[in-house]
Amino acid sequence: IKELDDVFIKNTLEGINPADISTILLEFSTDESKYVLDVLENEVSAEVINDLDEDIRSKFLKTFDNRQISVMLNELDSDDAVDIINELPLKDREEVIALLENKEKAKNILDLLRYEEDVAGGLMAKELIKANVNWSVKQCIEEIRRQAENVEKIYSVYVVDDQNILLGRASLKRIILADDHVQIKDLYDDEVISVETYMDEVDVAEIMRKYDLDAVPVVNVQGKLMGRITIDDIVDVITELAEEERQMMAGISEDVEEADSVWMLTRARLPWLIIGMFGGLLGAQFIGVFEEDILLVPAMAFFIPLITATGGNVGIQSSSIVLQSIANKSVFDDSFLKRITKVLLVAILNGIVIAGIVMGLNLILGQEVRLSIVVSVALFTVVLLASFMGTVTPLVLDRLGINPALAAGPFITTANDLLGLLIYFSVAHLLYYS
Amino acid sequence: IKELDDVFIKNTLEGINPADISTILLEFSTDESKYVLDVLENEVSAEVINDLDEDIRSKFLKTFDNRQISVMLNELDSDDAVDIINELPLKDREEVIALLENKEKAKNILDLLRYEEDVAGGLMAKELIKANVNWSVKQCIEEIRRQAENVEKIYSVYVVDDQNILLGRASLKRIILADDHVQIKDLYDDEVISVETYMDEVDVAEIMRKYDLDAVPVVNVQGKLMGRITIDDIVDVITELAEEERQMMAGISEDVEEADSVWMLTRARLPWLIIGMFGGLLGAQFIGVFEEDILLVPAMAFFIPLITATGGNVGIQSSSIVLQSIANKSVFDDSFLKRITKVLLVAILNGIVIAGIVMGLNLILGQEVRLSIVVSVALFTVVLLASFMGTVTPLVLDRLGINPALAAGPFITTANDLLGLLIYFSVAHLLYYS
Repeated sequence: IKELDDVFIKNTLEGINPADISTILLEFSTDESKYVLDVLENEVSAEVINDLDEDIRSKFLKTFDNRQISVMLNELDSDDAVDIINELPLKDREEVIALLENKEKAKNILDLLRYEEDVAGGLMAKELIKANVNWSVKQCIEEIRRQAENVEKIYSVYVVDDQNILLGRASLKRIILADDHVQIKDLYDDEVISVETYMDEVDVAEIMRKYDLDAVPVVNVQGKLMGRITIDDIVDVITELAEEERQMMAGISEDVEEADSVWMLTRARLPWLIIGMFGGLLGAQFIGVFEEDILLVPAMAFFIPLITATGGNVGIQSSSIVLQSIANKSVFDDSFLKRITKVLLVAILNGIVIAGIVMGLNLILGQEVRLSIVVSVALFTVVLLASFMGTVTPLVLDRLGINPALAAGPFITTANDLLGLLIYFSVAHLLYYS
Repeated sequence: IKELDDVFIKNTLEGINPADISTILLEFSTDESKYVLDVLENEVSAEVINDLDEDIRSKFLKTFDNRQISVMLNELDSDDAVDIINELPLKDREEVIALLENKEKAKNILDLLRYEEDVAGGLMAKELIKANVNWSVKQCIEEIRRQAENVEKIYSVYVVDDQNILLGRASLKRIILADDHVQIKDLYDDEVISVETYMDEVDVAEIMRKYDLDAVPVVNVQGKLMGRITIDDIVDVITELAEEERQMMAGISEDVEEADSVWMLTRARLPWLIIGMFGGLLGAQFIGVFEEDILLVPAMAFFIPLITATGGNVGIQSSSIVLQSIANKSVFDDSFLKRITKVLLVAILNGIVIAGIVMGLNLILGQEVRLSIVVSVALFTVVLLASFMGTVTPLVLDRLGINPALAAGPFITTANDLLGLLIYFSVAHLLYYS
């Protein structure tokens, strides 16, 4: 690639979508990519950088000096520019912003930097089209033409008063179809759905999904229009949340991908493996207390995996059903008591079937009657308790502000393993010594 | 509620977003809801019905006759109308379509019914704005005004030739900003991203996410413009896929929610519990073979949960990392060999740490040296094999066209339990009898 001349690169990549160029660059070394980006126009290379994955992007950004970065940021929407600035070393951030040619963009970026990344303020872009309520359609269309230069996608025109308080919205379609002399105030829709700057991104996503919105205006506590969030940002939020949940459920403690280094992957996985290990060792200590029972009836040991596995499976099923309710924010007004009653009913049904089949098979296979009873009674109890734990834990975690998906991971499995062993050996001890 | 008069209901609900009315209706009985829907205007009640969850909607639909349903469908976009028709009993479908007043809509619906629900053709709506490449901007704007009546959101104007072959797109912004006499052919962008009718919804979602598209045109094999898919449909697809994956990982075999009946919840959970149960019974048979070893060294039984739990945790971690690669369709060109080598390196690191800690603790706690060695050797081997299985299984399932999330559920846990027991007792047998 190094031998190809600039013109060739430029011609080849011209007209290719920036997202595709990003994909192609992944196969080049950092130096080669930098070379390609230098050849491309600022606008295109800014889009390419914007499309890259965070890990790879930070590698790239190191090869640019602050002036080059500020030139690229000039071409991006304020929300994307802020994401990139947040990845720069602290000491470079101010300089990059100071170097921005477009002073309005610099001000917008400084505004946005005040917000946490996971609230509406951190997702929104300052670029939007707004119209004063006192304008006519003619004035408005002129303003749209002027403002539209900085705004990639228009969606709605937001209508504000002189204090920049959001009053409503008017669709572009409606404005275009109206006569020139109509006043905006006679045309706009005052039932606009908006979100406040500090609203959690999960709630913003839920609102946009519920009302099928392409864009939602963001207002501050005084109701002033601060920015807007577009649906493409929400698609990213939903994808990230699903990824986070998957990792939680699998017991992976950092945000890693298969492409990450062996060291990072190990570090992400080890913590939960060690917790599981301590659970296992605790279980060993625990079974040790019943050593004499095992010597007396060694067949008791045979059913340890059956008990622990059933507890684990039931626990994960229960918590994932609750997780779903939480994720959907389902308007689910049933009282806690009603929910638990239902869970226990399901558990009793499942428990009877499982315990029944196991009892039958054990007797057919010629297992001792007393042991068969112990195993089935323990199984039934484990199904009941694991269902209860699996339902309550995510609800409690959610209430405490902790990601409830944690409850569907190795945590619940380990806890249920111990619980299962406790029940199994207690039941056995009771039935054998009474 | 029954005592309130129609005017009151109408006034109260007027101006309320249909999505909110749907939420309110959930608290009413089916009869009450039907009453409210009858009072509302057709357009509003159609939107309300469209916003309802599938389960609840089918209950509602039963209370309407075919004529009423067809009146509501008249108000909906073709893709939403098709979703509702698909929920009707087979015998009613034809009648409802025949009753549709808008004959063009009826034709569109019949067109769409030919596609599977999970491909691009099944997601698309026929409503869109298109322009002939030979028109001028003036003609085009007139056409847009005409066509816009049936199209809720415009996004892009698609440019086609006389044979309806998709040539490109032009943004509404660009058309509005252009002079009236400019020709569409000099203004449109011919680098339009489109999808084919039979493309899988997952791939459509990925393309729209990658290129940040609000809408994507759908073409048939001849390149003719058939419809368009809008981003709100894709948000639903992404949400559904995440739900499906969560249920797979948790071992729930049907699409259920907490609000479903006890019977449905039981039926969804039982199959995997029974598979897990057979795994556990198989494990019991298996340990039974080593009864004499346990009688000789009862402490051997203590570590059964440690071994099975570690195998399960490692397996789920490995498969969820592969799942993520599959979900992201990451451009991940590493060969199979390179992937496995990396997985095994991570496993060796994790295995050494876990086995080492367990060895140390066992010796400190005064466990027999030989048993401590057995446990640690078995642990290390289990971590290695479970990593391998956890990585390969989802890849194989994906290749076979089965949802790979299955591999991160009870399936892998059960398989790894058995694998762990096999390794543990084999190692023990070898070390004690050699």
